Amino acid sequence: MRSVVIHPPHELRVEDRPLEKMGPGQVTVAVKAGGICGSDMHYYRHGGFGTVRVREPMILGHEVAGEIVAVGEGVSALQVDDRVAVNPSRPCRACHYCLEGLPNHCEAMRFYGSAMPWPHIQGAFRERLICDASQCEAVSANVSYEELALCEPLSVVLHGVKRAGSLLQKRVLVTGSGPIGAVAVAAARHFGAEEIVVTDVVPEPLAVARRLGADRTIDVAANPDDLAVYVTGKGSFDVLFECSGNERAIRDALVALRPRGTVVQLGLAGNEVAFPLNLLVAKELALVGSFRFHEEFALAAKLIGQRRIDLSAILTRTYPVEQAVAAFEAAGDRRTAMKIHIAFA
Amino acid sequence: MRSVVIHPPHELRVEDRPLEKMGPGQVTVAVKAGGICGSDMHYYRHGGFGTVRVREPMILGHEVAGEIVAVGEGVSALQVDDRVAVNPSRPCRACHYCLEGLPNHCEAMRFYGSAMPWPHIQGAFRERLICDASQCEAVSANVSYEELALCEPLSVVLHGVKRAGSLLQKRVLVTGSGPIGAVAVAAARHFGAEEIVVTDVVPEPLAVARRLGADRTIDVAANPDDLAVYVTGKGSFDVLFECSGNERAIRDALVALRPRGTVVQLGLAGNEVAFPLNLLVAKELALVGSFRFHEEFALAAKLIGQRRIDLSAILTRTYPVEQAVAAFEAAGDRRTAMKIHIAFA
Amino acid sequence: MRSVVIHPPHELRVEDRPLEKMGPGQVTVAVKAGGICGSDMHYYRHGGFGTVRVREPMILGHEVAGEIVAVGEGVSALQVDDRVAVNPSRPCRACHYCLEGLPNHCEAMRFYGSAMPWPHIQGAFRERLICDASQCEAVSANVSYEELALCEPLSVVLHGVKRAGSLLQKRVLVTGSGPIGAVAVAAARHFGAEEIVVTDVVPEPLAVARRLGADRTIDVAANPDDLAVYVTGKGSFDVLFECSGNERAIRDALVALRPRGTVVQLGLAGNEVAFPLNLLVAKELALVGSFRFHEEFALAAKLIGQRRIDLSAILTRTYPVEQAVAAFEAAGDRRTAMKIHIAFA
Amino acid sequence: MRSVVIHPPHELRVEDRPLEKMGPGQVTVAVKAGGICGSDMHYYRHGGFGTVRVREPMILGHEVAGEIVAVGEGVSALQVDDRVAVNPSRPCRACHYCLEGLPNHCEAMRFYGSAMPWPHIQGAFRERLICDASQCEAVSANVSYEELALCEPLSVVLHGVKRAGSLLQKRVLVTGSGPIGAVAVAAARHFGAEEIVVTDVVPEPLAVARRLGADRTIDVAANPDDLAVYVTGKGSFDVLFECSGNERAIRDALVALRPRGTVVQLGLAGNEVAFPLNLLVAKELALVGSFRFHEEFALAAKLIGQRRIDLSAILTRTYPVEQAVAAFEAAGDRRTAMKIHIAFA
Repeated sequence: MRSVVIHPPHELRVEDRPLEKMGPGQVTVAVKAGGICGSDMHYYRHGGFGTVRVREPMILGHEVAGEIVAVGEGVSALQVDDRVAVNPSRPCRACHYCLEGLPNHCEAMRFYGSAMPWPHIQGAFRERLICDASQCEAVSANVSYEELALCEPLSVVLHGVKRAGSLLQKRVLVTGSGPIGAVAVAAARHFGAEEIVVTDVVPEPLAVARRLGADRTIDVAANPDDLAVYVTGKGSFDVLFECSGNERAIRDALVALRPRGTVVQLGLAGNEVAFPLNLLVAKELALVGSFRFHEEFALAAKLIGQRRIDLSAILTRTYPVEQAVAAFEAAGDRRTAMKIHIAFA
Repeated sequence: MRSVVIHPPHELRVEDRPLEKMGPGQVTVAVKAGGICGSDMHYYRHGGFGTVRVREPMILGHEVAGEIVAVGEGVSALQVDDRVAVNPSRPCRACHYCLEGLPNHCEAMRFYGSAMPWPHIQGAFRERLICDASQCEAVSANVSYEELALCEPLSVVLHGVKRAGSLLQKRVLVTGSGPIGAVAVAAARHFGAEEIVVTDVVPEPLAVARRLGADRTIDVAANPDDLAVYVTGKGSFDVLFECSGNERAIRDALVALRPRGTVVQLGLAGNEVAFPLNLLVAKELALVGSFRFHEEFALAAKLIGQRRIDLSAILTRTYPVEQAVAAFEAAGDRRTAMKIHIAFA
Repeated sequence: MRSVVIHPPHELRVEDRPLEKMGPGQVTVAVKAGGICGSDMHYYRHGGFGTVRVREPMILGHEVAGEIVAVGEGVSALQVDDRVAVNPSRPCRACHYCLEGLPNHCEAMRFYGSAMPWPHIQGAFRERLICDASQCEAVSANVSYEELALCEPLSVVLHGVKRAGSLLQKRVLVTGSGPIGAVAVAAARHFGAEEIVVTDVVPEPLAVARRLGADRTIDVAANPDDLAVYVTGKGSFDVLFECSGNERAIRDALVALRPRGTVVQLGLAGNEVAFPLNLLVAKELALVGSFRFHEEFALAAKLIGQRRIDLSAILTRTYPVEQAVAAFEAAGDRRTAMKIHIAFA
Repeated sequence: MRSVVIHPPHELRVEDRPLEKMGPGQVTVAVKAGGICGSDMHYYRHGGFGTVRVREPMILGHEVAGEIVAVGEGVSALQVDDRVAVNPSRPCRACHYCLEGLPNHCEAMRFYGSAMPWPHIQGAFRERLICDASQCEAVSANVSYEELALCEPLSVVLHGVKRAGSLLQKRVLVTGSGPIGAVAVAAARHFGAEEIVVTDVVPEPLAVARRLGADRTIDVAANPDDLAVYVTGKGSFDVLFECSGNERAIRDALVALRPRGTVVQLGLAGNEVAFPLNLLVAKELALVGSFRFHEEFALAAKLIGQRRIDLSAILTRTYPVEQAVAAFEAAGDRRTAMKIHIAFA
């Protein structure tokens, strides 16, 4: 089966891999769409991030949707031809963190396409994916596979929104209008935020954020002073979804937060950031990390499957698997690409 | 009346100031002990901190206790000879933040000895202090004035412990065993923390922390590897009271925190700190600022007054007001001084 | 000016009352619509509820909207012809509870049309209402006065939703589909509840609940077993908005809640209810009272004014003030009336 | 081995039972002390509670401590002669609730001595108990077995205190000074409650509560008006640990709670209670159930083992197993007995 494989240090190849054997409780999914995520881009460009390095060939990808083509023994909830989103999160369900209800911190997590553990966890950018039936969320047919593959980034965001607590009567700032930031806008709207402002340094993603429900967007490269109006008093925003990982964006946003405001940190930084600690103290802000997701995936599938949240505005283009390198190149340009997919089957 | 005044840029003088007039609802306190705090030291050494500068002569001091020598019209809860701790926090009780129950974020706060507002708010290092009766917490006579003056740093810590939530079944790390860190140890013990570990780079303050209830102290300058045992798994501590403001201490402590751990940031940094943002994300830590206090002062007076928390181990020495400069010099040496007081009356 | 007045023990009269004098910071509102609330009905039918009794003539009403006809000295945010909803909640802004951020528990609350304090607080069912400008929320003209008067019940519900915390990935049950229950359905939808089920003992209000967003409605009088499917395992619902005050409804709902579920109690009971305390213990449920509102009123006006929440489905009919008695009679029939308004001007 | 067995309908017999076989990972404990709990008393007196009935012979007991007399294959953390408290909570570690971090709601819980499941779960009142090593908490020898057996009720209380959240600056009321209420007093003190008041209708248990740290005790049978002082304003207490299950005690306590106060319901009632629902609404109280415990057991053993909490004041007397009936009879008199133990080995 055709697979998209990263070879150390960071060479991307489309190559054939043998199909694994389907066991009881498992299904075989023909992968119809796989979305390229920021971490895939890091493997492609740099062979890793932080201290994580690709040290053996690894199939990339963790944002996939497809069609069931075979079901294993004992699987009753799914059948052939079902259209499913596949949850890439595979916690062990037995470690200390799993038993505390924190599966995203599982000590033996096997998240698709991750070079953190050794051996690496092979990903889902492949023609056929054999996975546990419990990983699959089936939806009706009126949703495209590309939209369905957005269950993964939506899950990331849903987890982040959970970390923020209720958005009732909350003014929300989103810094960074990439795929995660844009989805955060849609989610903040869905969960009733009172007002949503988004910033970025490029105009095109901001246009997408407006389509997803932003009340106001600010191109802080073009109009660096437009945030100033929110700085008056001791600041305006109750919640910041920080999706840029950029230290300047963080600093400027913190100034615009009101005392006791909450920052949900979703964006990753290249490295340590210069952080205004005294500002956090004086305003008693809470900076809260948000990492992956697990049980939110089922909800994401429901929201997308029932079209309660429509994320189609972030879809850019789908490339056939043979053009995977072109797809990755395209995904690197924030002005022209929001979310690029690869079709495998 | 004798007062300890900082003159711009940062010259400390003991000088006479006229006594103000006592109004209805007010009392006159003969200040018996005033503790030198880190912010007083910043004014003394640098004439301010961050962007805050001493721009006019300002009486220093906000950690004071004394004896009532006169009571104004309409004051019934206090009488002459009462031994009181004086709450330096004077919120307006009418602004947006006061009405939200966040008086420490009052937009018109008049906290003693602060150069943040203009004109500056004159402090409490003076022979006679006229204040509202509601600022005074009276205690019985078996507590020294120096201990009583510790109500202020204890209030800072109580506010920080509130920010941490319940300490039941929580393992606590305290970084920085200065007066705030040491008091945090005593408070964590009082509120039932399961285990308390303290770090510093000098041994003397750690000895004090042990007397205040630390289960273990680590001199990370002498034994930089001793924290490593807490880093196993994904980390050990549930709560970090960060009292150093030092970026290396923060980084090392974050590695020792377990997923979903909480950092209560009490320490102020000289400037922006290099911060391991990705670590905060991956562990889903919460970094929570804690700034001053208000209603905690009454509790602090009760805890000290009834000897439920005994902080006498952090008392170093008391200087007469005429030796204020010597007192400030002494307060600057972490090896020999924990908390220095000045006696005014 | 024409006013709707309840006389002890509980005689309703439409009578003329003198217009009060408008002071600085105040406005005069021509009341265009006043909604009849459950508490108004209790005064009308029983002269009070619990131990509260009407002991002097009292103008009823607290759900009103109208048009500004005069503005007092110093009012700049409003002008004549503005269409406004009037917040009936008037906390003192100075008592202990106000300063804790709990204005709905104000010790000197002057909520319109309440016989709890003595003298009673006169209500807003009158041709002209003089109130503080700060009580008025202005909206644009495309919203009817009746809808605008729904800001009050919506505020009650918003406060209740706040008490529930985030509804993300929460299954919600609403017991009692009267005006509060029906508005709770709309609000739960707006704030992103995953699933909403509503019960009542009459079919007509359930039809309204479906129009407001309920996924499923159950007439528990006609189909008492339909809740059983939610009782499997240890129960299904995460949150119950209890809007009936009925002990049987409460008991049946608690059985359908899952462990650690939350009950937000909005409904008032005639008296003490027989309560399954052991069930609450075994499931570790949280039964949380919700009482009135304050700051939520501004949000309610925004949500209705910008048509983010459309509550027009609960509007039944408007009576001219002369037919106030007929209006109250109509409001008493749950099969034909959801929300009855009286027009004053 | 000698065991204390309840036979339907509710006949207590001391009889011999065969020793089970010890498997890998298990240990054999010689049970030195078993405390009689309220639920044991219900089986003894009524053959059950609520709808739960003893339908087959069942060994009673779940509060036990003893000495390791044999260790199974693969057990390294324990050895013969270790003095241990045995956690009676045995969740499955695999069901939905276990994986949410709610093991006390495990769908397949095997809690010692419980007639809720069928077949019943045999209890721990027996000479030799074979259990998993992971259930055992070892302590040093300076604690009596009776005190060690108090780990169970202390765990119940620790779980309840967790449900209350931080007790910092909280005024606490405890209703019912039985073993759970008395231990709640000690725990509230340990976790830093500001003030603790306890009520009961018999004086003897109140004397024990005072020894455990109560600031004030009120015999509400003798002095029914003594709670009135706490009712002023809108009430005084922030937290109520309700340990009586008595509807009158609940009603009187709720009146003394301040708005937004929290009731942790630990006491079970015979049946439904008449509950003042409107009072809960008007004060926005939170009534929160607390049921059993799990991970708190390890902390309880640490607190008792290190004598951080000294509960010896509640120990009444220990009976040899042959006098088990006399022990149960003695345990039924609240004036003379607080906690009765049975010695098995």
